[in-house]
Amino acid sequence: MKVLIVNGPNLNLLGTREPEIYGNISMEDYLEKLKSEFYSHEINYYQSNIEGEIINRLQEDDFDALIVNPGAFTHYSYAIADCLKNIQKQKVEVHISNIYKREEFRQKSVTAACTDAVLSGFGMDGYRLGILSLK
Amino acid sequence: MKVLIVNGPNLNLLGTREPEIYGNISMEDYLEKLKSEFYSHEINYYQSNIEGEIINRLQEDDFDALIVNPGAFTHYSYAIADCLKNIQKQKVEVHISNIYKREEFRQKSVTAACTDAVLSGFGMDGYRLGILSLK
Amino acid sequence: MKVLIVNGPNLNLLGTREPEIYGNISMEDYLEKLKSEFYSHEINYYQSNIEGEIINRLQEDDFDALIVNPGAFTHYSYAIADCLKNIQKQKVEVHISNIYKREEFRQKSVTAACTDAVLSGFGMDGYRLGILSLK
Amino acid sequence: MKVLIVNGPNLNLLGTREPEIYGNISMEDYLEKLKSEFYSHEINYYQSNIEGEIINRLQEDDFDALIVNPGAFTHYSYAIADCLKNIQKQKVEVHISNIYKREEFRQKSVTAACTDAVLSGFGMDGYRLGILSLK
Amino acid sequence: MKVLIVNGPNLNLLGTREPEIYGNISMEDYLEKLKSEFYSHEINYYQSNIEGEIINRLQEDDFDALIVNPGAFTHYSYAIADCLKNIQKQKVEVHISNIYKREEFRQKSVTAACTDAVLSGFGMDGYRLGILSLK
Amino acid sequence: MKVLIVNGPNLNLLGTREPEIYGNISMEDYLEKLKSEFYSHEINYYQSNIEGEIINRLQEDDFDALIVNPGAFTHYSYAIADCLKNIQKQKVEVHISNIYKREEFRQKSVTAACTDAVLSGFGMDGYRLGILSLK
Amino acid sequence: MKVLIVNGPNLNLLGTREPEIYGNISMEDYLEKLKSEFYSHEINYYQSNIEGEIINRLQEDDFDALIVNPGAFTHYSYAIADCLKNIQKQKVEVHISNIYKREEFRQKSVTAACTDAVLSGFGMDGYRLGILSLK
Amino acid sequence: MKVLIVNGPNLNLLGTREPEIYGNISMEDYLEKLKSEFYSHEINYYQSNIEGEIINRLQEDDFDALIVNPGAFTHYSYAIADCLKNIQKQKVEVHISNIYKREEFRQKSVTAACTDAVLSGFGMDGYRLGILSLK
Amino acid sequence: MKVLIVNGPNLNLLGTREPEIYGNISMEDYLEKLKSEFYSHEINYYQSNIEGEIINRLQEDDFDALIVNPGAFTHYSYAIADCLKNIQKQKVEVHISNIYKREEFRQKSVTAACTDAVLSGFGMDGYRLGILSLK
Amino acid sequence: MKVLIVNGPNLNLLGTREPEIYGNISMEDYLEKLKSEFYSHEINYYQSNIEGEIINRLQEDDFDALIVNPGAFTHYSYAIADCLKNIQKQKVEVHISNIYKREEFRQKSVTAACTDAVLSGFGMDGYRLGILSLK
Amino acid sequence: MKVLIVNGPNLNLLGTREPEIYGNISMEDYLEKLKSEFYSHEINYYQSNIEGEIINRLQEDDFDALIVNPGAFTHYSYAIADCLKNIQKQKVEVHISNIYKREEFRQKSVTAACTDAVLSGFGMDGYRLGILSLK
Amino acid sequence: MKVLIVNGPNLNLLGTREPEIYGNISMEDYLEKLKSEFYSHEINYYQSNIEGEIINRLQEDDFDALIVNPGAFTHYSYAIADCLKNIQKQKVEVHISNIYKREEFRQKSVTAACTDAVLSGFGMDGYRLGILSLK
Repeated sequence: MKVLIVNGPNLNLLGTREPEIYGNISMEDYLEKLKSEFYSHEINYYQSNIEGEIINRLQEDDFDALIVNPGAFTHYSYAIADCLKNIQKQKVEVHISNIYKREEFRQKSVTAACTDAVLSGFGMDGYRLGILSLK
Repeated sequence: MKVLIVNGPNLNLLGTREPEIYGNISMEDYLEKLKSEFYSHEINYYQSNIEGEIINRLQEDDFDALIVNPGAFTHYSYAIADCLKNIQKQKVEVHISNIYKREEFRQKSVTAACTDAVLSGFGMDGYRLGILSLK
Repeated sequence: MKVLIVNGPNLNLLGTREPEIYGNISMEDYLEKLKSEFYSHEINYYQSNIEGEIINRLQEDDFDALIVNPGAFTHYSYAIADCLKNIQKQKVEVHISNIYKREEFRQKSVTAACTDAVLSGFGMDGYRLGILSLK
Repeated sequence: MKVLIVNGPNLNLLGTREPEIYGNISMEDYLEKLKSEFYSHEINYYQSNIEGEIINRLQEDDFDALIVNPGAFTHYSYAIADCLKNIQKQKVEVHISNIYKREEFRQKSVTAACTDAVLSGFGMDGYRLGILSLK
Repeated sequence: MKVLIVNGPNLNLLGTREPEIYGNISMEDYLEKLKSEFYSHEINYYQSNIEGEIINRLQEDDFDALIVNPGAFTHYSYAIADCLKNIQKQKVEVHISNIYKREEFRQKSVTAACTDAVLSGFGMDGYRLGILSLK
Repeated sequence: MKVLIVNGPNLNLLGTREPEIYGNISMEDYLEKLKSEFYSHEINYYQSNIEGEIINRLQEDDFDALIVNPGAFTHYSYAIADCLKNIQKQKVEVHISNIYKREEFRQKSVTAACTDAVLSGFGMDGYRLGILSLK
Repeated sequence: MKVLIVNGPNLNLLGTREPEIYGNISMEDYLEKLKSEFYSHEINYYQSNIEGEIINRLQEDDFDALIVNPGAFTHYSYAIADCLKNIQKQKVEVHISNIYKREEFRQKSVTAACTDAVLSGFGMDGYRLGILSLK
Repeated sequence: MKVLIVNGPNLNLLGTREPEIYGNISMEDYLEKLKSEFYSHEINYYQSNIEGEIINRLQEDDFDALIVNPGAFTHYSYAIADCLKNIQKQKVEVHISNIYKREEFRQKSVTAACTDAVLSGFGMDGYRLGILSLK
Repeated sequence: MKVLIVNGPNLNLLGTREPEIYGNISMEDYLEKLKSEFYSHEINYYQSNIEGEIINRLQEDDFDALIVNPGAFTHYSYAIADCLKNIQKQKVEVHISNIYKREEFRQKSVTAACTDAVLSGFGMDGYRLGILSLK
Repeated sequence: MKVLIVNGPNLNLLGTREPEIYGNISMEDYLEKLKSEFYSHEINYYQSNIEGEIINRLQEDDFDALIVNPGAFTHYSYAIADCLKNIQKQKVEVHISNIYKREEFRQKSVTAACTDAVLSGFGMDGYRLGILSLK
Repeated sequence: MKVLIVNGPNLNLLGTREPEIYGNISMEDYLEKLKSEFYSHEINYYQSNIEGEIINRLQEDDFDALIVNPGAFTHYSYAIADCLKNIQKQKVEVHISNIYKREEFRQKSVTAACTDAVLSGFGMDGYRLGILSLK
Repeated sequence: MKVLIVNGPNLNLLGTREPEIYGNISMEDYLEKLKSEFYSHEINYYQSNIEGEIINRLQEDDFDALIVNPGAFTHYSYAIADCLKNIQKQKVEVHISNIYKREEFRQKSVTAACTDAVLSGFGMDGYRLGILSLK
């Protein structure tokens, strides 16, 4: 199965950004672990701080399943939401922190209703659980 | 590890209740599968339609990790929320359906902030992913 | 036809509780009148102050039609609402007083949308009209 | 007893308007049935699409009891509400559909607090139940 | 000066409607008193329960000053408000009762901003004070 | 094709009412231009300041397409909205001014969802564009 | 009759403050005119920018009727409102400008419900009309 | 005097639950102190995590005065509120912590208006002060 | 212990102001009773209708414990709230009436979160209970 | 006349995206039709999923008239709104679907007030009508 | 240039009040530094805890420029806002802390729109920057 | 000190865009003045209309202090806010106009709480004051 993982803004800083919330492992290192655990899948990764570039990438539609962490775009990007709604693949939204424990604006997700399922608060492990959930 | 799974009101009807939303496998059958998959864990199950009985059960505190699906109590039971906050164990909240795709009142969780992490929309598989997330 | 009448919290005090609002006839006396008027029906009655016990009773599903007055649970019990939604029988919600004339919180019903029809403000006579509406 | 039935805007189209919601019997045919069932009452009927004409009719005050379905005026006509408040007769508000199952604006009634009691969701039968409730 | 007094719905019942709020003098009798007090003015009076007829009357524009009590239309008739905005004459809005002491919906006026000034709570005397304010 | 144009309250004053917003051409003159441009259509026109008369006219249903400018009724007349919903013809809502540039209450339309399409801000030309859009 | 006129903050600047809204006559000059017009009344005047001093003055209770313009305190001083509620005299609230035409916060009055009647938008003439309304 | 103390959900854990908020003395020990201080009163105690059981206990009505801490039910149990309203005895609501310093949902009490008086933020001492206030 | 009691606006009228709510004993008489009951404390009293004078008095900081009834300032004086927050002494807020039974604006306290504890609804006895709570 | 048509995010998928809402003709094909119909205009087209690129393009200001469909950016891009406000050309906002029939968030347009006029619900034909409206 | 600095309630305690927020330098010491830095200006200072005294001082209008920190009055004193609006001088509002990082009520300023510019979060240095901004 | 100035969308048009609000000096000219005034600092400038490019630039983290004017992104870009929160340097937010005098949406800043301090309404001079505030 071809799995695409897409991360939104500031998630290129995982490992250094607010480590008490997001942990101190970098996405690159974590991806290595994922790839070796799920060696039978083809795992691709994309990150951008630019909302429209994420849409461009998602529209390529070259994957069987999507694990998406839209970062702060979760809370206001109706453009990414529209894009996700149009994708007819397995789609899982992941949040590293438990968004229910944070600021109120982080508890509204405009994208979640356009994915199949949501994982929140499992730390980096959320990506792994997302892949484990794929059928 | 001793894992307690707690289900809230109307979840005793899984398999027959609104199967287009909740699927058509019963919790009992599903538990059998979970127990055989996670044979090294001790998995206990409790369900009640009575809010306070769920609190009574949670206060027994005879488990290492908790998988809780408070059902409709998710949306208004500050009493269960207070109870969960007091439990110093691994705690995962599970929702069978993607609550972001349903009625607006289901998108507010008063209990989620009192657990470590939340899974929503994975169907019955949410319980299995919850156990897989335990450390 | 088997008719189940279910009353919620504090409705065991009918006849003595705030008689200027709820009248001064007890439910037991009123039931006698109902049973003699509708002798061709089997009329059963259940009252509880405990939300989950009401759900337990409703799940027994041993009736052809339901007359339900959830009392104060009308305004916040999504658990009873979920239970009602799952029942494939004739369902009528009854309120003794005209809820539109009372406190604002009483004008929101979370259960009404899960029943077929609602009667409000007919006093005890609401139960009788509810039975008269059954087909 | 002289009973006046008043219907608000678009209710002259009963039987043809959105029949999946309002049924397919016309008000005229239904009235015939009512009149023969309640032959001891004098039943009069008035319908208008014009808010102020309804007020004019209500102010004639030539009835012992009122069955009123203000239609869409239910949700914003404080003028009809003021008029109803001034009538010292038995007053029952009827809605053909269960307004709690419909758009949110239909769940607010500015007139209901000015009547004695409300029936909602019984189809055309609501008018019959309303008459049955009269004393 | 030609003064037009316009009253909205249910104000034809002044003297009999809720006398504890609106007093027990009829508008007709009160007008006689006004006309004799202000004999140098030409005072005309119009009342209708129909929103659009009030607009029709106002559009005739055959007056030098307007005293308007839109009754319940005060709170929702943007149509009358638009009509008033278009009138380039002295315009005074009158409310018999003190609207700040009554239901919350009566404290919002959509027409007041389209008149020059507002009088509220002076009883019938409000009409007299309104005329006294004219220049 | 038979086209009915319906204008709501105060729109009989087009050409004189707030000309900086609504322009200074009268509806009658404009209609002449429309009729000569669209000589192959039968164009009928109706205006009323009375909400219920507009409903009466719309219920006649003697047209193939409807161009409707409900004026101030746009913002609160659920009665007209219900009426429009019941009409199975092409329906276009027209606003002369750009309602998004005006008072906040003008930005809410309770009727727009009951028509097929909406034009706002094209001045009188909106009626012409509405006819051009018909199929 | 002893009439007390009380003005709130910044109303000592009448005549110079925002003259396009409040006019260009000073309160002192205006008072002279009032006193000569109502020579049979004893008219006293008090102004303060200090909320509590206004309360102190009102508590002296040495008047038969009160004309009060609380200025900006109108919109938030529950302390003055409580004080007014306790006064068993004729009480009229005056606003020089039509508060319905101004900022939204000026349309909420916390004091008006504690007076008998309200005048708004008559310019300085409001004080005169207020006195004319006294009985 | 017979005094009934009723505690709501999770208050059986006093002494161990969030001691930085609720202190570290158990209710049992505290009761001993209360009973010896108020030896002339008969002090009874009831605690339940089940909303309806609290209602059952309150309906027994075998007391002269009530000290009630509804715990989390304070914020949503209209059923307990209805029950309290029906009790014609001295009634004091106690909250151990100062609810104004905590989460916003804890600052709304649906039960307080159905008791005579409220104590909040005195720690366990609130129960003692409640008894001291009885007449 | 030096105890300062501070009362806000209109509380100088205790005994005469709305006696059905506030009782008919004056604060002066009540203070005498308090002083004789708590003869071992030094009890000082301050009342002002002026918000800033209350702040001035509180800033003197010449007390060991504070009993404060901010009256109407409770609901909007962030200035007094800021002042209270800065005081490192025992602080109890007292309300004579049960604020939960009164107007909605009285149920919001901006000062309560800046004190240690709150008493509401005990009548004048609230001051005595406040002193009894001091340590 | 030089006409610029600008489409926002996901509108590059017209013809394949949610065809039940947006139709099944591609923008490219549609543009060919537009160009041949309006051969006397120079019609340019720009689409981007990137908000800032749309601003860059609009700032080039090399057109006489603008037809803009900001897609999902309509609902939150104050940046595009600011950019549009600064353009002194004819500006028409187009929405393919009737936004009043869709999700609530689609009924708020932050850009519409910065254009001259708005078309909504005409399908692809909206672009053609927009060009027809140009002067 | 004559510069007036006005501080609102509790700002007389600068240096001792919540030093982690407001720093530990007193206003008096700080003023000395300002005066020596800006020796060519005449710098006057006024502080009061009494809202109306601040208005009195501002109305003296004996300055060329105003630096005002209304303290807690920022959030509710429409009286000071009205006063500021009337001053035709340079006006800068200063907040010592960054109000966007604090309680939500501190993020609303009713006075800021009546000044020319606002500085927030620069500590005591805000006063210096305010003077530097004067022209 | 290395100072980075970052401007958001449409701020490349300073000098030509809405000059009555933003003035008529271009950013380039203004920068020259800043650089010559602060010759001991290294001042770098970056502007983009693309939200994510601003984040990319900020993540380079090659500066000692940041002066940021996020333009319209101020009001909704949680992505830029997250980015700012992660920067451990001096950070000042600048708005050219006084945002409190403009549209309501401009009074909400989602980024301000992630900077140290905010300047609003000083025109272009705000950038200079921001640099002057650096330590």
